[in-house]
Amino acid sequence: MKQHPPINSHFPTLWFGGDYNPEQWSKETWLEDVELMKQAGVNAATVGVFSWVSLEPEEGVYTFEWLDEVFDLLHANGIHVVLATPSAAPPAWLSKKYPETLRTDANRQRRHHGNRVNFNWSSKIYREKAASMAEMLANRYGNHPALALWHVSNEYGGEDYSEESRLAFIDWLGTKYGTLDRLNAAYWTAFWGHTYTDWDQIDLPGYPIADTSIHGLTLDWKRFCSYQMLSFFREESAPLRRITPNVPITTNMMGTYEALDPWKWKDDLDLFTWDSYPGFQSHPVGTWELIKVAFVHDMYRSIKQKPFLLIESTPSSSNWYSSMRLKRPNMHKLEAMQAIAHGSEGSMYFQWRQSRGSQEKWHGAFVGHAGGTGTRVFTEACEVGAQVKELADVVGWTSEPEVAIVYDWENAWALKDSCGPVVGEKDYHRTCVEHYRGFWEQSIPCDVIDSDQPFDRYRVVVAPMLYMLKPGVAEKIEAFVAGGGVFVTTYLSGMVDENDLVFDRQKSWPLEKVLGIVPEEIDALFPEERVHLALDSGEGSESYEGERFCELFWVTDAGVRGYYTSEFYSGKPALTQKFFGAGEAWYIGARTRDSFLEELYAGFAYRLGLRKDLTSSTSRGVMAVQRGNKLFVLNCTEEVEFVAVGEQGIEIPAFGSIVLPA
Amino acid sequence: MKQHPPINSHFPTLWFGGDYNPEQWSKETWLEDVELMKQAGVNAATVGVFSWVSLEPEEGVYTFEWLDEVFDLLHANGIHVVLATPSAAPPAWLSKKYPETLRTDANRQRRHHGNRVNFNWSSKIYREKAASMAEMLANRYGNHPALALWHVSNEYGGEDYSEESRLAFIDWLGTKYGTLDRLNAAYWTAFWGHTYTDWDQIDLPGYPIADTSIHGLTLDWKRFCSYQMLSFFREESAPLRRITPNVPITTNMMGTYEALDPWKWKDDLDLFTWDSYPGFQSHPVGTWELIKVAFVHDMYRSIKQKPFLLIESTPSSSNWYSSMRLKRPNMHKLEAMQAIAHGSEGSMYFQWRQSRGSQEKWHGAFVGHAGGTGTRVFTEACEVGAQVKELADVVGWTSEPEVAIVYDWENAWALKDSCGPVVGEKDYHRTCVEHYRGFWEQSIPCDVIDSDQPFDRYRVVVAPMLYMLKPGVAEKIEAFVAGGGVFVTTYLSGMVDENDLVFDRQKSWPLEKVLGIVPEEIDALFPEERVHLALDSGEGSESYEGERFCELFWVTDAGVRGYYTSEFYSGKPALTQKFFGAGEAWYIGARTRDSFLEELYAGFAYRLGLRKDLTSSTSRGVMAVQRGNKLFVLNCTEEVEFVAVGEQGIEIPAFGSIVLPA
Amino acid sequence: MKQHPPINSHFPTLWFGGDYNPEQWSKETWLEDVELMKQAGVNAATVGVFSWVSLEPEEGVYTFEWLDEVFDLLHANGIHVVLATPSAAPPAWLSKKYPETLRTDANRQRRHHGNRVNFNWSSKIYREKAASMAEMLANRYGNHPALALWHVSNEYGGEDYSEESRLAFIDWLGTKYGTLDRLNAAYWTAFWGHTYTDWDQIDLPGYPIADTSIHGLTLDWKRFCSYQMLSFFREESAPLRRITPNVPITTNMMGTYEALDPWKWKDDLDLFTWDSYPGFQSHPVGTWELIKVAFVHDMYRSIKQKPFLLIESTPSSSNWYSSMRLKRPNMHKLEAMQAIAHGSEGSMYFQWRQSRGSQEKWHGAFVGHAGGTGTRVFTEACEVGAQVKELADVVGWTSEPEVAIVYDWENAWALKDSCGPVVGEKDYHRTCVEHYRGFWEQSIPCDVIDSDQPFDRYRVVVAPMLYMLKPGVAEKIEAFVAGGGVFVTTYLSGMVDENDLVFDRQKSWPLEKVLGIVPEEIDALFPEERVHLALDSGEGSESYEGERFCELFWVTDAGVRGYYTSEFYSGKPALTQKFFGAGEAWYIGARTRDSFLEELYAGFAYRLGLRKDLTSSTSRGVMAVQRGNKLFVLNCTEEVEFVAVGEQGIEIPAFGSIVLPA
Repeated sequence: MKQHPPINSHFPTLWFGGDYNPEQWSKETWLEDVELMKQAGVNAATVGVFSWVSLEPEEGVYTFEWLDEVFDLLHANGIHVVLATPSAAPPAWLSKKYPETLRTDANRQRRHHGNRVNFNWSSKIYREKAASMAEMLANRYGNHPALALWHVSNEYGGEDYSEESRLAFIDWLGTKYGTLDRLNAAYWTAFWGHTYTDWDQIDLPGYPIADTSIHGLTLDWKRFCSYQMLSFFREESAPLRRITPNVPITTNMMGTYEALDPWKWKDDLDLFTWDSYPGFQSHPVGTWELIKVAFVHDMYRSIKQKPFLLIESTPSSSNWYSSMRLKRPNMHKLEAMQAIAHGSEGSMYFQWRQSRGSQEKWHGAFVGHAGGTGTRVFTEACEVGAQVKELADVVGWTSEPEVAIVYDWENAWALKDSCGPVVGEKDYHRTCVEHYRGFWEQSIPCDVIDSDQPFDRYRVVVAPMLYMLKPGVAEKIEAFVAGGGVFVTTYLSGMVDENDLVFDRQKSWPLEKVLGIVPEEIDALFPEERVHLALDSGEGSESYEGERFCELFWVTDAGVRGYYTSEFYSGKPALTQKFFGAGEAWYIGARTRDSFLEELYAGFAYRLGLRKDLTSSTSRGVMAVQRGNKLFVLNCTEEVEFVAVGEQGIEIPAFGSIVLPA
Repeated sequence: MKQHPPINSHFPTLWFGGDYNPEQWSKETWLEDVELMKQAGVNAATVGVFSWVSLEPEEGVYTFEWLDEVFDLLHANGIHVVLATPSAAPPAWLSKKYPETLRTDANRQRRHHGNRVNFNWSSKIYREKAASMAEMLANRYGNHPALALWHVSNEYGGEDYSEESRLAFIDWLGTKYGTLDRLNAAYWTAFWGHTYTDWDQIDLPGYPIADTSIHGLTLDWKRFCSYQMLSFFREESAPLRRITPNVPITTNMMGTYEALDPWKWKDDLDLFTWDSYPGFQSHPVGTWELIKVAFVHDMYRSIKQKPFLLIESTPSSSNWYSSMRLKRPNMHKLEAMQAIAHGSEGSMYFQWRQSRGSQEKWHGAFVGHAGGTGTRVFTEACEVGAQVKELADVVGWTSEPEVAIVYDWENAWALKDSCGPVVGEKDYHRTCVEHYRGFWEQSIPCDVIDSDQPFDRYRVVVAPMLYMLKPGVAEKIEAFVAGGGVFVTTYLSGMVDENDLVFDRQKSWPLEKVLGIVPEEIDALFPEERVHLALDSGEGSESYEGERFCELFWVTDAGVRGYYTSEFYSGKPALTQKFFGAGEAWYIGARTRDSFLEELYAGFAYRLGLRKDLTSSTSRGVMAVQRGNKLFVLNCTEEVEFVAVGEQGIEIPAFGSIVLPA
Repeated sequence: MKQHPPINSHFPTLWFGGDYNPEQWSKETWLEDVELMKQAGVNAATVGVFSWVSLEPEEGVYTFEWLDEVFDLLHANGIHVVLATPSAAPPAWLSKKYPETLRTDANRQRRHHGNRVNFNWSSKIYREKAASMAEMLANRYGNHPALALWHVSNEYGGEDYSEESRLAFIDWLGTKYGTLDRLNAAYWTAFWGHTYTDWDQIDLPGYPIADTSIHGLTLDWKRFCSYQMLSFFREESAPLRRITPNVPITTNMMGTYEALDPWKWKDDLDLFTWDSYPGFQSHPVGTWELIKVAFVHDMYRSIKQKPFLLIESTPSSSNWYSSMRLKRPNMHKLEAMQAIAHGSEGSMYFQWRQSRGSQEKWHGAFVGHAGGTGTRVFTEACEVGAQVKELADVVGWTSEPEVAIVYDWENAWALKDSCGPVVGEKDYHRTCVEHYRGFWEQSIPCDVIDSDQPFDRYRVVVAPMLYMLKPGVAEKIEAFVAGGGVFVTTYLSGMVDENDLVFDRQKSWPLEKVLGIVPEEIDALFPEERVHLALDSGEGSESYEGERFCELFWVTDAGVRGYYTSEFYSGKPALTQKFFGAGEAWYIGARTRDSFLEELYAGFAYRLGLRKDLTSSTSRGVMAVQRGNKLFVLNCTEEVEFVAVGEQGIEIPAFGSIVLPA
């Protein structure tokens, strides 16, 4: 356990509130809003996210007065302001005058104005306009006592395929590779005769109009797009950093949204924040959805190794779900408690008051169409607000897990783009969460990290499907295991280098030394096919089923802990353990089903004595997290459950959450 | 019962015939055609629908001579002519010379020449060309004794996204809103910062290239597109109206085709006609398809409160169905009898002789590839012709129903576009037909009307899913109920105003006064989920299942007639009845399944003594319709059924239809 | 049995080897490759397929030296060279300098550089560039002793929609029809008023931007596209023919790939070669896939009535399958033996060494990422190589079947495009293979021919779904049957002429004379629907099920051998046989299921004494083929099977193949 300073020293408590869009409402409604906010315990409001046209209705004509009033009104009522820069939604006049600022899609069509985040990342003029607006905001509100946090833009995302972006990409490649020969080699362009003989021949990928067969190029394009967002962010946030050096800066991220690699933003953000809209509404109501959220919470805490903030969520339901099932009783509170337990410095929402029109008018809000006081949603939100207030002690605290799960963006990109061994979804993310669950079910805290992070602060590192081995990673694994760590990996690992070039395994395979095996070939099964396995998760051999991926491999120097028992490879090894230095390395050859992973990691916990936040055993789907001096017990199931905490037997309702002294 | 004048006083009988395309055939075949027409009892032929290039093969070069001959030949054989203007299919030379007349799709690509109805609604030049051709036809054939009806163009439909259309749309908006402020307020553009500061910033919606998040704009775009078709029709038909004031005018519509709101055409058409191609071929052969057709027949009769005409159908099967199952024995006759029973002034077909080539060469015709005489299809068509001839007495008669079902185009558009509470199909049309079926199964005649029509001519008005309450509608409902009417509505009703802006239900809800309830929130279930309900349809509480939509609402002043019995809202009200003035208003909170609606409306019929066209009870799927002095008994099932009519017990074969004296 | 000369008289053995891409690898690897090739028995390598950029890195700058070395290296090690022209993959500089050489898609968008076969068939400049490169190769390597075969380009395919192509198409149409009147009549353009009045009005079809309703036009477009590939080939290969008249020429085809009609290439190729990638990986592992491959082998042998060559396949699995199931033990060998049995002059592969990067890096190769020697795949490949070496005796031999199945490209195009009687897949190919299987299961050798070929060399001709009757075909069938042949056809046959115009069956139907029936109408069922049938396949009436297509027809002069026993057409004929001259003609009215076809053709075999390559009966899925002095016994099932060959009882493992003296 470790305590960090609060997000903003002037605001040393848990944050509760959300996106507030007063430009949609009359001033009469503003007063009503503030009254309801106080009633609900709201202490933070995010304003300005979509306000550009309200602040600059014509080029160079500014109308900040209404926002001045909002700042003062909120401040007068003890509510802190999270101020957003408005670049996610440029005014129509801007798109009309500077059409080159609009986004170009993969089919090389310039989109029309509208929606959100619909601009060209590479547009010089858009970068200037966004930075200039940020500067004006910093100058005007930088010293306002209500200002607590900068919220730069909103949900950065998407790719731009304009000629401006193509030229920027070629520049980026030039810097990275130096010579075309190095680029050609990295991309294996000789395949299908795609060798470049001039930098200007490089085109953006984009099926179906352009080529997508050069995987190295597509991979670099993804890296570039993620970088280009960061580069945009740097220009947009520069005036804020310069003018208000003491106000922390964040931008709200979208969980494991694939196009933006958050690990690269570690040094640019003071605080990670994210928007969580789990499919609670999915049917059957799901423990699994809550585990996926926990995984993401742990990841955003892991990046900076300090608390993060849940900056958007909904107390009701999200309008983009195929069916807007209402959030069941207790669920909203469970979500908030879960976030705080895993390291969030509060619980915030989009949006405060439900819109009367347009795209998200059905999206669940604090104050819905049927009003605040008296509605089920608002009543429950007030209860959550009251509970949050009581948890101020946990501010700044984080746990220090002994286990890390590796979930790596560049690996995800390479796997996704790989034309084989299955077409379409390889389920990398799901598989990582399944390994994570093996610890979650035992209340064992985990970090979630990418493969570039240090391993030596952990006792166990699990890296499923680590298809791409970036330079130095194999050596880092060896050092980790040699030093006493336990490393686990699986089928499809160690296939390619950072350019998506397959290692020549006959010459040498980077993981052979630590794992004691070499993969020969992989059988990719149809989704409904099953193989049989006999695996020893710690207490002798048991039967399991496997699916989808079955690696056939040579054991060169490892202990075989399991075998295939069906198919033409019946009798071949499927699970190995190698003792290496002071540690051990495991290889799981097939995608296992049933309870294998949970049993394997239960064995680890017992054998290694891993730290648990709750030592008594619970039903599946019930777990506990310790943060600071609090123990959060979370029933993520739709059944009433009983938990033993110390001497105490506690009944927790369906989706119930309880906070106890730690 | 009421008798109206015939469509054309020179032709006071039921019409039997169809689309005739002599330009596809040799003159030798024309003679054969006329002989077969007489054999089949055909008395009307629609010509000219696709004849533009045959009448004007080069710009300004006309070749009407062949059509003169066709007119004379048909006239000489006692066959009336329905003459179409040919604007649905311009000649290729026209598209080549005036490419701006071609349609632009939502992706802003101008389509190439071809297909049908592929022109730009806003093109000035196309409007002139179409009107000019209409004028030439009126001048040449206006006085021909065979001419019985104008058939303007063909199946108007589709949207055009050209710049010409965008400018026309902005004009239309300017007229509607006057100021941008009013438009911004109506569209709630402040959401996502989409406020317009200049009229020219307004763009056409069109996913994915353009924005579709401003629902008010999309709704107005649909209104405009429907209006633009009407405006086109007005220009095209003006010469006909001027030159031949005594020849009635129609255009053939496509049932409940969503892009064209037929109610707005009420004063422009002398006669509603439509093209019916039910999925009889669907499997299992369907009663439901026939009920959907009855619903549309009743609607087209209701618009002008007088008879309509079934102007296209097929005696065999339609080539665009996934599998062209042949029309089973009796089906063709059942379709024709059903149309006439519900108010059609005849039964007509597309097309007379099956094409040898191109798109619809498989589409079922009177005279197929295997010939006329001797084929099953032609033989049955001749029997239908003979039967139709015997029903001349019913010409002009319509029934005057006591019940109306509200099916409203603008409501359908708003519901469809709404991003919530479910994505995709909300099944508005199906739900309206399910309520309709509650009366249909009891042989209770119904009108089908939109929400702008008067309610006071009915005793019962059922308005399912009346999401959009246009101005004055709430007041009209109140007056209707106060005056003794029975009003029924459901979940999802009264949500938005005419601009798709959600009513602030905490302030006031327009339907509260008459219904005595206020909706709080709605649980949208996954398609396969079920809730349990205890509802009293009139004879005590029974168990039912509900699905998809469960409105949770506060009862402020109504009698509770049913409850949810599952989910977290078990015990909350699900069905209410409020006595208001001399009448009563019902609210059905959930989408019910099973027999609930049929039982509810059977209770209504009994309690209110609603008029039935057949008082004896029948098997489901069998019903009767009275028209003039005839009683049509229709067995819409694939079983042999027995019906008691007065003292008489009648056996009706599968899909059989019987006409008795009323 | 007949013996033909070998492909190349300097290389009179079976070919074993495959695509070799040394430009991807270092010279050190080249030496390793050659050693492994010798170990595996490789005697042929295809080089140059994607080498354009390696041979001409800048316009006019040539770098043939590396290829010289490869030729010499291979020759020195006894490996023959198949030299490809590189036009499938132009260098990026070429696309950049001459963008008009790039392909334009159906939506009229010019694609970007990349992928393969992405060029404009009609581009004059691309044709010149390709021919010029071919000429340089012929001049440089024409006399090299290693050169065994020209491999022109690679997998020709796809359509180009540029204006250049449109003009070329109009030229082609002008030559074909002479006058627009003849074209309008052939296309039935009067339908929907699509009559052309100027040649320049003719547009390329291409849904959705352009029209596809004129089926005759679409059909001619397909003919043109296939022709345009042939025309391209002629220009590209002309220098080879001129400079190296003694080196045989081929291009590798893609089985029954629909856009290229291989029958039209008969006189242009010295040898047919094709690329076979069956879905062996499909689940459950399939006999059916192997029968489909046999069908294609027989077709490519039938075109020139002489041996062909399997020029691409994989010893492992194909990376474009949804799941890359590994090729099970024995399968690779079974595939190779099957190809040779059916007339292939060897067994070749793509590619020799698995790529390290790009699109096909997962595609199974001889030498995989895990290496050659010691891997399962390479070990099995060596066994196949050894077996192939022992079969040199069969070179040049072909069988002379008594049975032909008609599979016709133009018929396939017309059926596919037909908008009815079902939308989508009519399963023409599958149906032909099902009829083929009726003979395959009895080890009766078949030819597979199109409807333009002579029938008189066969005793039985089966033409399922022969929708299009080209001129002269009906007469050829009559002559064939009159002369003693047995002809079989089915539902949907004889519907349209060569322009897709439906025959007027009331006037006369071309097949009535020989079949003694006339079709009236067809019931197209939903995929899951079944009808019942009582059919006599030779030993009395049995019950069968039918599906999808049920033709109702009049019997004018034929013996009825079966009836429908369900549906409204129960009791109507479903199967007829007519004795005509010295032969007989069968008509099968419905798509039958179960074992009907196999029983029918077993009856034929018995009655007519058809020649079998194995007279003893086998389990389904096991069959034998005789070629030259060898008998190949193929177990195409995943079970161990027992076969009696003469006195001998032989056990064959799952997917096993055995070669015996004939």
